[in-house]
Amino acid sequence: MTRVHNFSAGPAALPESVLQQAAAEMLDWRGSGMGVMEMSHRGPQFTQIAAEAESLLRELLQAPPNYKLLFMQGGALAENAIVPMNMLRGRASADYIDTGEWSKKSAQEARRYGGVNIAASGAGSGYTAIPARETWQLDPQAAYVHICSNETIGGLEYHFTPDVGEVPLVADMSSSILSRPVDVSKYGLIYGGAQKNIGPAGLTLVIVREDLLGQALPCTPTAFNYQVVADNGSMYNTPPTYAIYIAGLVFNWIKAQGGLAAMEQHNAAKAALLYGALDASDFYSTPVARECRSRMNVTFRLPDERLDAAFLKGAEARGLVQLKGHRVVGGMRASLYNAMPLAGVQALVDWLREFEKTQG
Amino acid sequence: MTRVHNFSAGPAALPESVLQQAAAEMLDWRGSGMGVMEMSHRGPQFTQIAAEAESLLRELLQAPPNYKLLFMQGGALAENAIVPMNMLRGRASADYIDTGEWSKKSAQEARRYGGVNIAASGAGSGYTAIPARETWQLDPQAAYVHICSNETIGGLEYHFTPDVGEVPLVADMSSSILSRPVDVSKYGLIYGGAQKNIGPAGLTLVIVREDLLGQALPCTPTAFNYQVVADNGSMYNTPPTYAIYIAGLVFNWIKAQGGLAAMEQHNAAKAALLYGALDASDFYSTPVARECRSRMNVTFRLPDERLDAAFLKGAEARGLVQLKGHRVVGGMRASLYNAMPLAGVQALVDWLREFEKTQG
Repeated sequence: MTRVHNFSAGPAALPESVLQQAAAEMLDWRGSGMGVMEMSHRGPQFTQIAAEAESLLRELLQAPPNYKLLFMQGGALAENAIVPMNMLRGRASADYIDTGEWSKKSAQEARRYGGVNIAASGAGSGYTAIPARETWQLDPQAAYVHICSNETIGGLEYHFTPDVGEVPLVADMSSSILSRPVDVSKYGLIYGGAQKNIGPAGLTLVIVREDLLGQALPCTPTAFNYQVVADNGSMYNTPPTYAIYIAGLVFNWIKAQGGLAAMEQHNAAKAALLYGALDASDFYSTPVARECRSRMNVTFRLPDERLDAAFLKGAEARGLVQLKGHRVVGGMRASLYNAMPLAGVQALVDWLREFEKTQG
Repeated sequence: MTRVHNFSAGPAALPESVLQQAAAEMLDWRGSGMGVMEMSHRGPQFTQIAAEAESLLRELLQAPPNYKLLFMQGGALAENAIVPMNMLRGRASADYIDTGEWSKKSAQEARRYGGVNIAASGAGSGYTAIPARETWQLDPQAAYVHICSNETIGGLEYHFTPDVGEVPLVADMSSSILSRPVDVSKYGLIYGGAQKNIGPAGLTLVIVREDLLGQALPCTPTAFNYQVVADNGSMYNTPPTYAIYIAGLVFNWIKAQGGLAAMEQHNAAKAALLYGALDASDFYSTPVARECRSRMNVTFRLPDERLDAAFLKGAEARGLVQLKGHRVVGGMRASLYNAMPLAGVQALVDWLREFEKTQG
């Protein structure tokens, strides 16, 4: 078995030790005589698995006790509707910061449920920079301010937590959650699909301040009413049990690596290595403003897109896969989530240099 | 490793060969150098996995070409909202047949989105029988008629497909889908959570006639708009990829067993063995009318509920687990989904006889 270096933007690489443990426990979880997929979600074994996963997540995030951690379904795209359904709380509109494809989709979906005020937009820069906080036109009556902490497609990341006063800050952290420490207390709500830094697709994390619960719109499906989900310990409907189990294994792996501070060091080192190599070359270019560069999704271009196919083919021959950029923006994208080792990035840097030479 | 006989109502036992294959492929799916959980849902490997799963499901169900097969998230409880959102289609109300806990929940949730007419109810019989078709008070203007094909908690199953004329028939088949042949063409829509006969929790199947699409209510989250899901081949949002992979392995297993006709024989034989043993005893009782007995969930009672704990403890010592009935109805429940072998039912029957003797 030869494992590749998988630069997929998500679903994405998982730690090998997690997959090994999952394989070993597939038919018999710790002497229970059944696999995790086969367990009743209300039985003693899975209840323990879910409680451990939640407790590890709370510990990693250092989430204050007045925040509920919910395990849901539907991914960030479903949350784009579920968030306004639950968070408008009788107010007329919400503020959205437009920084690229994902925040645009969030704003568009929210319009089904209430007013949307685009308080700032990166459109003018071609979405190569996050608008400076002082340019945001916030509405003090807004139900919440929505940001996308990391734009997976464009490759932009907030390296600051915006101060938005008393209005709850809501963040789609799908592609940056658990990649660095976060001060949960500065957010009203954090959500994210699991399929980048956490585990399998089909699990969605929601971290919400409990005073914001209980005012969902009447059209909210009960299964997506945060209050109901919280009151039932994420078991109002049958949760995605196997995905929660894998997430728990990943949480344990992160803890063993030294928690989120260690993850940040690891991710900063990987990003520095790759951006450094790109910056040192006149051959490759990077579209995103330096201070907004994502550590998770590094976007770059070759001087001529007719070279893209040869670059990708050579990469694949070296076991470096899923480097093609999203069709909306083109170019290349290397996603460097938690489970990507430094060795994978080094192998990519070696290939960048080698390919440049062959074209020189 | 000793595997138990797992009578859980769901998530439930899976075929051992499926779990073995999943374990073997966990770190490297067929030489790709990555596990299925790590694959981009748009990459060539997962595209193939999803297409094969869909094609196998279509073959097993013999679904006509004008039906879309959708892989969604949220389970049947979320579908209880998503169905009326998509299926009311400008009509004022829908008909619901009330046969127990699950159909009651479906009707209650539908009231958020439109009128609900309870066209027949088993409440008068204490939910021990499905109301005869000729007693149903159907509204010819209804958007659809909703039934629950198998009440997992009460242990009732439709052994007929009701003729409801031109109004689309909608069925929650969570706990009976793929357990027997079904004439899909008699339904407008079939839905079900995967965690009984299909695979892991977190995957929801929707089988819908395509002429019913395209009229979703404005409040429908885009990720749950059947038209959008269908147009995007179930990949508008990232699907629960690993659950789809496991479902595909289960579909293959069912096909290798001889398809749905063979499943029906297998399930009828298991149910006959267990109900036969219960009927032959004056000690145990079964609440459900004979013609409505579920093959999937066999509910029964001991003569005195103070014996329940000893019965369950003895069962567990013999590797027969998850036999406790749902808290709403009490008693015992043995779920006999596709993956439960006849040997498991025989072991339960042996224990039923042994326990009765010790109390005799």
